[in-house]
Amino acid sequence: MKIAVLGTGGGARAHIAKLADLGHEVHVGTRDVNATLARTEPDVFGTPPFGPWLAGHPDIELHTFADAADRCELVINGIDGRNAVTALTAIAGRLRGKTLIDYAVPYVYDPDIEHPWPTPWGVMPTLDPCDGDSLAEQIQRALPDTKVVKAFVTQEQTTVVDPGAIGGGDHTMFIAGEHADAKRQATDLLTAYGWRDVLDLGPLVAARGMEMYAHMHSAIGFALGFGTHFGIKVVRGE
Amino acid sequence: MKIAVLGTGGGARAHIAKLADLGHEVHVGTRDVNATLARTEPDVFGTPPFGPWLAGHPDIELHTFADAADRCELVINGIDGRNAVTALTAIAGRLRGKTLIDYAVPYVYDPDIEHPWPTPWGVMPTLDPCDGDSLAEQIQRALPDTKVVKAFVTQEQTTVVDPGAIGGGDHTMFIAGEHADAKRQATDLLTAYGWRDVLDLGPLVAARGMEMYAHMHSAIGFALGFGTHFGIKVVRGE
Repeated sequence: MKIAVLGTGGGARAHIAKLADLGHEVHVGTRDVNATLARTEPDVFGTPPFGPWLAGHPDIELHTFADAADRCELVINGIDGRNAVTALTAIAGRLRGKTLIDYAVPYVYDPDIEHPWPTPWGVMPTLDPCDGDSLAEQIQRALPDTKVVKAFVTQEQTTVVDPGAIGGGDHTMFIAGEHADAKRQATDLLTAYGWRDVLDLGPLVAARGMEMYAHMHSAIGFALGFGTHFGIKVVRGE
Repeated sequence: MKIAVLGTGGGARAHIAKLADLGHEVHVGTRDVNATLARTEPDVFGTPPFGPWLAGHPDIELHTFADAADRCELVINGIDGRNAVTALTAIAGRLRGKTLIDYAVPYVYDPDIEHPWPTPWGVMPTLDPCDGDSLAEQIQRALPDTKVVKAFVTQEQTTVVDPGAIGGGDHTMFIAGEHADAKRQATDLLTAYGWRDVLDLGPLVAARGMEMYAHMHSAIGFALGFGTHFGIKVVRGE
């Protein structure tokens, strides 16, 4: 299948590599191809530059956002939360009728806002939108002809494509969206990644909870200790 | 041990009954004892009036918030999120030096705000505070001489005191707070309730994530179907 991954960060790379391993034709989208390839320093999260990484994956093509989306039937959005709506709106025509799986957290990385929660990488950002709206709903409103699914966002970047690395894979992935066929596509992809417990939370409004879970996710990560991988399992009773 | 439970709703009743079963001396606090006992109709959540329930538990005493707190060493706050800070501030002197375990979700039940998420009981409320602050932190700031612990909030009212009813008890309870001795008290209580996996998320700022998890909790509940009990387990990897 032809799958576009928009974004070149750590999360995007995990999907790109896994999708290529699974035999898909992967087209990566970035804002400015030359700028992305010219970068030689790690980004603010410590992620190494994309150029050398791409050189190690010769089957993967790098394009603009528009060209990557144009070439594919299924699109994974890994554009950071602050820029996603603007960047996706600019290529709305290329996304028409397609499924877009979004996993961004709408973190506010504003150095003028004082965040009280020190983290291993500095301070804890806040979310915008939050509670009364979600990034996924904003994207769906901006792209009414695209089928938006929220997924992946409750799981670490490294293990979202390798759930079996934790507890033998016995933990839960959540999805939400308005379009049943798009959620089936997302579920098929997750099954190929190794997920056995995919819980459909219903309409896209559930993305609010999925995005707001970011703080719990961070707190759990800090509590377990940096570098400890984890997932959460919905344990069903009667 | 003498334990005060402030509040007479469904969550409070679960704790009251369990604590009495465990042999503790339970003092229940309410705003207005006569008004609470005079009520004959279910509340907005469908919880039956407290008077008949109390009549079935003759060992349990009902007092004002102040008198209940005065009589006890450990206090569980079950006052609803919108009124908790005001009600607790009014009895700050009675709570000095004591541990207060708070489990409220700061839901906004404002009929003038349109909530987009229909639930089995009407519409999905939003949270205030949210993201940049939490109710637990507000309570701790209002009561600097009290040791506030956030707990219970991520679990259903009925199973928070009966974790073994779900998956043999193999799921996770979260706590947060600034005071290690108070968190030990909360953990001892949880152990007596049957919890085996109590994860300390660290400082009280983690209460933000715990309270914001309310939307995920609701969404999971809707997805599983009304009446299905569940918990979440933090599955640890390497």
